[in-house]
Amino acid sequence: MADLRLFCDAGLDENARNLLQDGIAPHELILPRQQAESVLVASAIDPAMAQADIILGQPPVEGVLKAEKLRWLQITSAGFTRYDTPEFRALAKSRGFQVTNSSTVYAEACAEHVFSFMLAQARQLPLALAMHCAGGSASWLQLRGASSCLRDQEAVILGYGAIATRLVEMLAPFHMKITAMRRQPRGNEGIAIVTPEELAWALATADHVINILPENRNSLHFISTERLQQMKPGAIFYNIGRGKTVDQEALAASLHNGHLGAAWLDVTDPEPLPENHPLWSAPHRHITPHIAGGHANESETLVRHFLDNFQRFLQGASLRDRVM
Amino acid sequence: MADLRLFCDAGLDENARNLLQDGIAPHELILPRQQAESVLVASAIDPAMAQADIILGQPPVEGVLKAEKLRWLQITSAGFTRYDTPEFRALAKSRGFQVTNSSTVYAEACAEHVFSFMLAQARQLPLALAMHCAGGSASWLQLRGASSCLRDQEAVILGYGAIATRLVEMLAPFHMKITAMRRQPRGNEGIAIVTPEELAWALATADHVINILPENRNSLHFISTERLQQMKPGAIFYNIGRGKTVDQEALAASLHNGHLGAAWLDVTDPEPLPENHPLWSAPHRHITPHIAGGHANESETLVRHFLDNFQRFLQGASLRDRVM
Repeated sequence: MADLRLFCDAGLDENARNLLQDGIAPHELILPRQQAESVLVASAIDPAMAQADIILGQPPVEGVLKAEKLRWLQITSAGFTRYDTPEFRALAKSRGFQVTNSSTVYAEACAEHVFSFMLAQARQLPLALAMHCAGGSASWLQLRGASSCLRDQEAVILGYGAIATRLVEMLAPFHMKITAMRRQPRGNEGIAIVTPEELAWALATADHVINILPENRNSLHFISTERLQQMKPGAIFYNIGRGKTVDQEALAASLHNGHLGAAWLDVTDPEPLPENHPLWSAPHRHITPHIAGGHANESETLVRHFLDNFQRFLQGASLRDRVM
Repeated sequence: MADLRLFCDAGLDENARNLLQDGIAPHELILPRQQAESVLVASAIDPAMAQADIILGQPPVEGVLKAEKLRWLQITSAGFTRYDTPEFRALAKSRGFQVTNSSTVYAEACAEHVFSFMLAQARQLPLALAMHCAGGSASWLQLRGASSCLRDQEAVILGYGAIATRLVEMLAPFHMKITAMRRQPRGNEGIAIVTPEELAWALATADHVINILPENRNSLHFISTERLQQMKPGAIFYNIGRGKTVDQEALAASLHNGHLGAAWLDVTDPEPLPENHPLWSAPHRHITPHIAGGHANESETLVRHFLDNFQRFLQGASLRDRVM
């Protein structure tokens, strides 16, 4: 195969950049003149992008349009909202380039993150870590009584991709009743699957509702006032997917009026929330700043995932995490 | 079997008391004149205790001495420090009464609690829940980089009873290297076991050191300055057993001097810690007020566990959670 040109606009540290350069040699690595700050942030359009056979990063859509030789785009995040349009899918099809994302890279950290939310809620960690009460005191008895065990509880997972698959593995020792919602059930999920039309009955009995939906035209405000009302009183809601899939005002209202027991959010809309947003004043809301996928050596893991796919690409094999 | 007299000094709520009374009928339930506040707090000596065939609760040792007909004592906690002496063990043997605890009742909640600590540490929850930083900012990149995954990490568990067994089940999907310390290995643990003499090498590489030791004459200050120094720099220490098994000053010093990465404690010595205790000013210390075993309907679970053992007792079968 003739030398390929890989254009990478991801904000990699030096180690990861060297790993990438060595890993693709003798093929050519082209870096933009202005490196992005992070692997998750879109870069500006760089003229060199137009010469690329392969792009790794978060290129602007207009940049991809100009890359007429492009055969493969690997996105350095799990989410790919800006590319997930009928127009872009049509472009990828007509030009014949493949699109992959990095969901495998973030699946472990994201699943552990939402699992940490679930256990922190069950064990009442935010409250318990702040209390200095004495054993046997009224506040101590109340705190103990408010604590619970995940074991034998019931969970609904919205969206069934790499993160949900891993989360289900992690929850196996807890003997929970788990149902996942998927728009197009494939029959090989290994757990109970419902479609959006069948979701209401599953929400009615779930102790935990875990939203991992990607953001696209179908999922905007999927969690609405109506959906929240379908959840049982006291249910705990988690969002580890994308903020825009949830009507934030409706979520805040459901916490303020006491219907939801708590909400644990790694994503919001917008991010970060403005200081006067009703979610900040809502009771029992716990928010982390979109870090669920974070882990030490993140860019190294990203590059290794790309290099694994690069070998597959050279061999003409199926790419992992293909989304188009 | 002639009617048995069960003396119960545990602070049960009305539902649990009724469940107990109905569950043992036609045998007799004797309640003390002064009910204890909680299932975990020792009661005063009540004259009626002396007539008991069976005691359920936290009776003072002097009260047990006077119960000459006693055939079985079930303690309503997992810890049984005040009975765990050579003198009391000799008494139980010579009088021929069995002693059981309620470790099964608390094992699930305790294992979930320490697991919630492990995940909260990996995902940096205390910090992440307090930060409102924007994606791509320096503090956000730092927080993401400080986050980690439990998967493939290494843990040492001190003490291998019901809680550790359950914790090992929960950790199975994380593919961790787990070693447990047990004074008398039995060979059926299913994981690597070391004795106290072999512990130092296991501590040297562990990312997580989880202390679940019970309190007795052998375990006082088991975690000493020397043991802490044997742990690798940056290791995370958890105590879910008993406070007195850890030299609290040495632990605080190890946090202050930056050797330990963090300490997550559900138990301390004393409890609660006085406001001027060096642990309060230590960095990266996270303390919950001895609630690891807590869960909704705790006294009901305790009574159901007792009733299960009561049926075994009537049939002459082996009792669960027997400790003497």
